[in-house]
Amino acid sequence: MSQYVAFTEQDAIRYVQKNTTLFNIDDSLTCYEFGDGNLNMVFRVSNQAGQSIILKQALPYARCVGESWPLTLDRARIEAEALLAHSKVSPGHTAKVIAYNPELALMLLEDLGHMQILRTAQNQGQHFPLLGQHMAHYFANTAFYHSDFYLTAQRKKALVAQFINPELCQITEDLFLTDPFVGHERNNYPAELEPEVSKLQSNTSLRLAVAKLKSKFLSCPQTLLHGDVHSGSIFVDQSQTKLIDPEFAFFGPIGFDLGSFIGNLLINYCAQTGRMSDETARQTMQQHLLETLNITTSGFVQQFTELAAQHCQDISFADATYQQAFLQQVLQDAIGYSGCELIRRTIGLAHTSDIDTISDEKARLAVQQRTLVLGQALILNAQQVTTSAQLAELLHQHLN
Amino acid sequence: MSQYVAFTEQDAIRYVQKNTTLFNIDDSLTCYEFGDGNLNMVFRVSNQAGQSIILKQALPYARCVGESWPLTLDRARIEAEALLAHSKVSPGHTAKVIAYNPELALMLLEDLGHMQILRTAQNQGQHFPLLGQHMAHYFANTAFYHSDFYLTAQRKKALVAQFINPELCQITEDLFLTDPFVGHERNNYPAELEPEVSKLQSNTSLRLAVAKLKSKFLSCPQTLLHGDVHSGSIFVDQSQTKLIDPEFAFFGPIGFDLGSFIGNLLINYCAQTGRMSDETARQTMQQHLLETLNITTSGFVQQFTELAAQHCQDISFADATYQQAFLQQVLQDAIGYSGCELIRRTIGLAHTSDIDTISDEKARLAVQQRTLVLGQALILNAQQVTTSAQLAELLHQHLN
Repeated sequence: MSQYVAFTEQDAIRYVQKNTTLFNIDDSLTCYEFGDGNLNMVFRVSNQAGQSIILKQALPYARCVGESWPLTLDRARIEAEALLAHSKVSPGHTAKVIAYNPELALMLLEDLGHMQILRTAQNQGQHFPLLGQHMAHYFANTAFYHSDFYLTAQRKKALVAQFINPELCQITEDLFLTDPFVGHERNNYPAELEPEVSKLQSNTSLRLAVAKLKSKFLSCPQTLLHGDVHSGSIFVDQSQTKLIDPEFAFFGPIGFDLGSFIGNLLINYCAQTGRMSDETARQTMQQHLLETLNITTSGFVQQFTELAAQHCQDISFADATYQQAFLQQVLQDAIGYSGCELIRRTIGLAHTSDIDTISDEKARLAVQQRTLVLGQALILNAQQVTTSAQLAELLHQHLN
Repeated sequence: MSQYVAFTEQDAIRYVQKNTTLFNIDDSLTCYEFGDGNLNMVFRVSNQAGQSIILKQALPYARCVGESWPLTLDRARIEAEALLAHSKVSPGHTAKVIAYNPELALMLLEDLGHMQILRTAQNQGQHFPLLGQHMAHYFANTAFYHSDFYLTAQRKKALVAQFINPELCQITEDLFLTDPFVGHERNNYPAELEPEVSKLQSNTSLRLAVAKLKSKFLSCPQTLLHGDVHSGSIFVDQSQTKLIDPEFAFFGPIGFDLGSFIGNLLINYCAQTGRMSDETARQTMQQHLLETLNITTSGFVQQFTELAAQHCQDISFADATYQQAFLQQVLQDAIGYSGCELIRRTIGLAHTSDIDTISDEKARLAVQQRTLVLGQALILNAQQVTTSAQLAELLHQHLN
């Protein structure tokens, strides 16, 4: 990493002009930085004709807390390699990497600026009828083709080593799976929630269930996960869905990505009660979110089952009964992780704009109380759910 | 590995004289090779006063099948590093590494020649009253100190990468967890066993349970395992127990080592019916084997529990309820793997002398039938067992 230097906008223009053939030599290029994440700089370089490309560079520290929280630049390699790996098996739903440079911890990406970030769009009440179907394809294909069902054990072990990602995983281990449940000064919630938080943190059944989910996150390398599938990592429009930002990628439990996504849909569901004043519009939106969730989980199970039936390479895992039992456990894990996501986005360090931009304080607090109750119900009841239909039923009970 | 050259006895003498201070310059050294394994050369270098040292060198192929099965020399590094890691936490029960040379794929080891290989001694009907207690200490300490209870997630991930061991793991994946259950030309059993083997391989519940055990072996890096704890990897005498040969070491499910050892005790138990003609002596030996098994499992659970209570570093795993649930699962895994060991040593490629040296063919067949029945019972009933006492009860049912 000795060559590393943090780019300015001029550096970005020079780099793109030198390393791609997208622009003509005499194009007048403009560039602006618009990273809203905390770990990276993101530049858009465009010419006068509106052609553009994204240059993303990892910073050697977490921007939200300044230079006091150093982070490995190796995450740029992980991110690029995860995008490339996921592109091979779900090209329609993975942002395209045009080039990457490990020394400078940067990559060039297709510009998805004509699409919207899912979280922003959902906060505006927009519907995306194909989202569930697309996410199911992405989850099933990325999970199956990097699992023991498909990879030889030797290839899988090499990939596990390639994607060992200690620093980014630790952020999840701490912020997602530990702090909200055991208490930590990094936690972040209004004083009014203290009674609920205190009750949650003293619930021993909940702590036991979350410890099992954390243990799996640490020691269950089932597949190459994206590692951070929240609504801010997804570009959408009416016809397409594309995942970005897998810098948290590592080999972990299949249910983690699916659970993170489900959790984000449910956060938006709960938040809409405080966001949309038109009751009909709100109900329609919430119905759409639940449908998306159902299509995602049932589509994931169905497509993974089909992939396993057709392309399973390991004779020990070829039985349909085994595959069914395996997927049932994946679904249960996903439900558990979705509950963690609801809780950690409510009381942990990193929140979501779905909830935090609800201007009415009372309405916001009601949403936060609801996400906490729902999150706990999901974690505590996950092991009773064996099908997507039962998950829909569980959600129906707790959302009505 | 460009420096690698397979040693002769003269090379071994020269290497030891040059690289240790054990012998005087004018000592007359003798050397002989006595490796009974298939993957390595093992030399004993001694002087006229009876001082001695072991030089173990990995061969670049599996000796039993000649040069047609090439194997990485990296396993010498894995073996040396695993011995060093296990020595730190269970020094009394791990063979001492004096030096190791990665280029030559060799290491110098303390000579344990004054002790006996457990399998040989047990085949002769010898008792080792401290064996269970020693193995419990070894299993509990090596498992705990390399687990998520003790290691930081970052340190653990680094160790997981250090001990990725694809080639040796594949031998276990194939010979231990696949071939005997799905059928393979490598399997090795008398024609008379065909009906039992055929029945075993068509038992779908068994295949489902074994698939789960294989999935855990592939994707559950709970701790740094020895990876090959059979009775031939254990030196014993009346006061000491020392583990050797961890070239199969990798991060896997804690129950695997414990299960392998239990399986070997039960193989010897079953084999004694065909070995010892004196009924009183045989019953005493079998009783001793069961006691050793009980002391090992209950001692393991007790000592792991104590270590977790005193030295758990991860706040999420500090609850006694979680630790108990975790150890229950470990015990169930161990029982499952012990059943696999009984079956694969009966019908798979690699057998044990416990059974194979029973000269009476009928008696040998009866033992083989019994290990097959017992192995299946253990795999199929593992999930019903929650304590070591219940395991003792399960064994009592099936051995009487």
